[in-house]
Parts: sequence; structure tokens; C-alpha cells
Amino acid sequence: MKTITIAAIVGIATLSLTSNAFAQVKPEDQIKFRRAAYGFSAWNMGKIKANLEGTYNAEQVKAAANAIASVANSGLGALFSPGTEKSIGEQKTAVKPELFQKTTEVAKRASDFAAASNELVKAADSGDAAAVKVAHGKVSATCKACHDDFKAH
Amino acid sequence: MKTITIAAIVGIATLSLTSNAFAQVKPEDQIKFRRAAYGFSAWNMGKIKANLEGTYNAEQVKAAANAIASVANSGLGALFSPGTEKSIGEQKTAVKPELFQKTTEVAKRASDFAAASNELVKAADSGDAAAVKVAHGKVSATCKACHDDFKAH
Repeated sequence: MKTITIAAIVGIATLSLTSNAFAQVKPEDQIKFRRAAYGFSAWNMGKIKANLEGTYNAEQVKAAANAIASVANSGLGALFSPGTEKSIGEQKTAVKPELFQKTTEVAKRASDFAAASNELVKAADSGDAAAVKVAHGKVSATCKACHDDFKAH
Repeated sequence: MKTITIAAIVGIATLSLTSNAFAQVKPEDQIKFRRAAYGFSAWNMGKIKANLEGTYNAEQVKAAANAIASVANSGLGALFSPGTEKSIGEQKTAVKPELFQKTTEVAKRASDFAAASNELVKAADSGDAAAVKVAHGKVSATCKACHDDFKAH
């Protein structure tokens, strides 16, 4: 009874999602959607960075923070099912095999990303650019930590 | 003084975003990020559909609705700047040239998507699956309307 999937672990770590609704996503679509999720998050991280370095628009930062948190809390683990370790046709993945083995560590990373993103939302809502800068840095660190260990390039 | 960009129009239509923070996104990244945004939205639309057709998990539906709204309210128009009409290297786009011409219509479509998504969030928060089904259908209709006119395939 030790065959617990990453999907289940990360789901539990983030939002206690049931896996039933995820089961139908084809492996190639899991790769497409997880890349989409991270790409959407990256764009919004970049928007906040640009706001911190240029003119600060509180509404834009709030929307971007919410977008990042919506990614972090979306149950991303469901997009790393067995069968998605390697690229499938046009759907390329840079995931390292270790991600599918170090399930406890991956769950912790996903949980860290979600927690940092939720803090970023709070900072953005406060309108305090200095607080946003700190929170943005913490989210960025959770991205990097996971990429360093589990992304090939 | 009639040179107003789609980015500005759609930004105004959705969140009154300033364009300064967007200006730095390279054309190829605009294509990558807009595909990512729509892909993330599509995954979450699919999650809600699966919940409506299977076991309804209110928390998952709320998270998914929020994710879709975060896409709709993210200022997507900023990712359709001049220079992004055609694929750039590995970044493929299926956008039709009409999108860059019919700016008023595109702004209306973006506004419809945002409004329908915000209603979906309300329905999801209520926990009423029947209301979610109606709201999900309305969001889906705004996706289709735009795809029919402005997406090549």
C-alpha cells in the first residue's frame, strides 16, 4: 500500500484535492499544462519585478500576486503522473527523473511555493512595495530551489 | 494620436493596467506567455468540467475558478503587441491577423471573458454546482467566441 503518487502527495500538501478530476488528463496534456502553469506564473513574477524596478502599480501587483498564488494552489502535482517523465512528441519536458522519486521532498517544495505565494498576496494587498519586494524574493527562491534540483535546464 | 495599441485597449478593458511594466516582454516571450496563460485556463476549465461530470469537490472548483479569473484579469492584451502576429522561432502562434485590426471587438471579447470568469468565481464560492455549471458554460462560450474569430486552428 505504499504506491502513492506524486499527484496525491502534492495535492495533499497544497489543497487536499481529490485526484478524481485529474485522472482524465492525458500524459502529453499534463506536460503541456504544467509548462503552461509555470509559464503563466513566470510572466506574473516578471510583472511584479518590473513594478518594483519601475513605476509601482498596486492593482497590477495584486492581480499578478493572485495569479501566482492561483498557480501554486492549483494542485500541480496532478500534472506529474507516471508516464510524464520524458517528452512526448511535441510536448517537451525538462523534468529530472529525481522528481518522480523524491516525493516527500517534492511535496515540501510545492508546499513552500504555495506558502510563499500566499504571503505575496498578503503583501500585495497591503500595497507596501517594500513588503512585496521581500515576499517576491521568497517566492523566487522557492522557484529556484525546485528548478536547481528537479529541472534539467 | 490614434496609435493606440491592443495592449492598451485590452488593458483598459480589463484592469486599467499601465503598460510600463509590460513593455519589457520580448515578442517571442509574449507568444510563450499568452499560450501559457490560455493553457493554464484551459486546464482549470477542464477540472471544473470533470467536477461537474463526476464527484463535485467545492474546494477544487473554487481554486480552479480563481485560476481562470486570474488569467482573465491578467492584462492579456499586453501579450499581443505589434511584432507578435506570426510565430517566432520555436514560439508558435495560431493568432489570426484580424485580432490586431479589430481592436474594439477584441477589447469587448476580453472584457466578456473577464466578466464571465468573475461570475464563475462567485458561483464557485456559493458551492452551488448547478450555478457553477451555468457560469462555466458562459465562460466556455466566451473562449469559443474569441477562438472562432481570432484563432486559426
